[in-house]
Amino acid sequence: MNIFRIAGFEMRKRRPILLVAQSYNRREELDPLKRYADIYWLQDLDEGERARVLPQVEVVCSHGWPKSFDRETVSKMRSLRFFQAGNAGVNSIRFDLLDKKVVICSNAGSYSDEVAEFAIGLMLAAGKRIVSFDRQLRAGVYARQRLDDLGRRVAYFRGKTLGVVGYGGIGRATARMAKVFGMDVLAFGRHPIKDGEVRPLSGREGLSRLLKESDVVVLAVPLTKATKGMIGKKELAVMKSNAVLINVARGEVVEKEAMYAHLSTNPDFAYATDVWWPDKGGVESFSPDLPFLELDNFIGSPHASGPSAIISGRVGKGIVENLTRYFKGLPLKNVVDRSEYI
Amino acid sequence: MNIFRIAGFEMRKRRPILLVAQSYNRREELDPLKRYADIYWLQDLDEGERARVLPQVEVVCSHGWPKSFDRETVSKMRSLRFFQAGNAGVNSIRFDLLDKKVVICSNAGSYSDEVAEFAIGLMLAAGKRIVSFDRQLRAGVYARQRLDDLGRRVAYFRGKTLGVVGYGGIGRATARMAKVFGMDVLAFGRHPIKDGEVRPLSGREGLSRLLKESDVVVLAVPLTKATKGMIGKKELAVMKSNAVLINVARGEVVEKEAMYAHLSTNPDFAYATDVWWPDKGGVESFSPDLPFLELDNFIGSPHASGPSAIISGRVGKGIVENLTRYFKGLPLKNVVDRSEYI
Repeated sequence: MNIFRIAGFEMRKRRPILLVAQSYNRREELDPLKRYADIYWLQDLDEGERARVLPQVEVVCSHGWPKSFDRETVSKMRSLRFFQAGNAGVNSIRFDLLDKKVVICSNAGSYSDEVAEFAIGLMLAAGKRIVSFDRQLRAGVYARQRLDDLGRRVAYFRGKTLGVVGYGGIGRATARMAKVFGMDVLAFGRHPIKDGEVRPLSGREGLSRLLKESDVVVLAVPLTKATKGMIGKKELAVMKSNAVLINVARGEVVEKEAMYAHLSTNPDFAYATDVWWPDKGGVESFSPDLPFLELDNFIGSPHASGPSAIISGRVGKGIVENLTRYFKGLPLKNVVDRSEYI
Repeated sequence: MNIFRIAGFEMRKRRPILLVAQSYNRREELDPLKRYADIYWLQDLDEGERARVLPQVEVVCSHGWPKSFDRETVSKMRSLRFFQAGNAGVNSIRFDLLDKKVVICSNAGSYSDEVAEFAIGLMLAAGKRIVSFDRQLRAGVYARQRLDDLGRRVAYFRGKTLGVVGYGGIGRATARMAKVFGMDVLAFGRHPIKDGEVRPLSGREGLSRLLKESDVVVLAVPLTKATKGMIGKKELAVMKSNAVLINVARGEVVEKEAMYAHLSTNPDFAYATDVWWPDKGGVESFSPDLPFLELDNFIGSPHASGPSAIISGRVGKGIVENLTRYFKGLPLKNVVDRSEYI
């Protein structure tokens, strides 16, 4: 509780209200925040309680955008000043519904090591054809190959080139792991990259060079106006015919139709993705409306790279740290620039 | 050609004959050996040529045991002194047919980095359920999970323990890569292990401790009398219920029936293998007679971890180096102790 003394009187500042929307149950992680705020859990509130609490909510902490947060509900949160996302990517936030005075922060960085490890897993599973081999063996259609033909189909990554598109936490962690495999790393980012271990690239030409020279490309950008569809027909056309493209960013960073056409006509090219295009309702869908799941050179996982960071506790730690900064009036981390999204 | 001068006379030593049996075609790799020997390729010889050449063959270089090398054929190679395997594992050699005076060398070490990279690929593909996810998504049976449940199912390997069984070239290379992922490494070997980066273990108790403490176990032993069936019911019983067992050694190192029973009753345990049990004819079979390929916690690849080392040229280099040692009369590498196999 915040207690002030003014002219000998003890003044109690009304404690801020923090509303938490999480689909998983690790409430004890937020216990340290009880020192600064009264915490309500969205799923606990019935209609009456919501009507009473919403106007007083100063801070929302949410993993994804809650389904119940429609225009009417959000408009009731008149005291809202701060929105802390549990996710690293904040593209699902309805920026149009949040007043401009509301500061929005992502939880970027809390998933970096976990997602990077998964990205390396997708690289190996795709490049070494582990998923495809297993499927063919199960179907009983695997045909024994001459050793040199088999060896040619199984990528060996030492000495190969990895291109990282987006050099934030995930990109840097992926680059670090790839270096250990003996890979040469090209890194593309918006901001100047100062990292002696990688070759930095920027601008349209930089991206084009990265795509041309890389054996593996990892997409690790946030989904913004600038990155939506950044990998389309032209970009795929300059890539190596046997490249592996890994997407741990968001489905829409890649143009769906262009990707399908490219995979259909380039059997040695592989697309391994943990993230998917949205359905008509805007929700990420694991059943794409083009038959990617029938292609041998497509590998999909159900947005599974990040959640292990919930279990390792890093996600909760990131949330608590930034909310503590907010309540203490300290500079915030990962403040989102709305202009990149709306 | 070896030319000697004795008392003013030029003496030509008869050039040794090297017979090569390779199912793949990279003949130019052996060109440096032409300085020391006349090279014949088994697949080029018709019956008459074979009858003429076999008695003169001093050296055989073979990838696997050639099908045509039956008792009668081998008995014709009266001049045979040296057998250089192209493989790292020599369990397929018919030791019973080779006279004791024939020195046998494996090509151990030439595949280490490639197989280790593949082993790490299997570890990630299994532990992160990449193969299983992709299969469920393709079948349309993947059920969305709560983020914490999903996070619990996807292994994150930083800080976890890797146990390496067999600390030769492949074992050491695997340990090195795992260290970079931030894993703690236990190493079990026949010989004393001097490697400050890992915790060495030996003896039956050492193996048992490794199996108990490891989150991931990689089998990287040669298949010998001592290692056949070394992972059976008792060994599996002490392992963690959600461990990942990787086999890049040989199928028979693991007891088939025990493995099947263990996978059937421990759904969180995974067996990811690149090597398979032999069929009744003794040939490694990708269609096991127990329905492993119907289990969700089994991952199989068709002995695909090594052949990329043929393409990278390391296999040919290993062969040429050791054969050169033989022709020059220098100490040989990877001499096989027959008593471990017969």
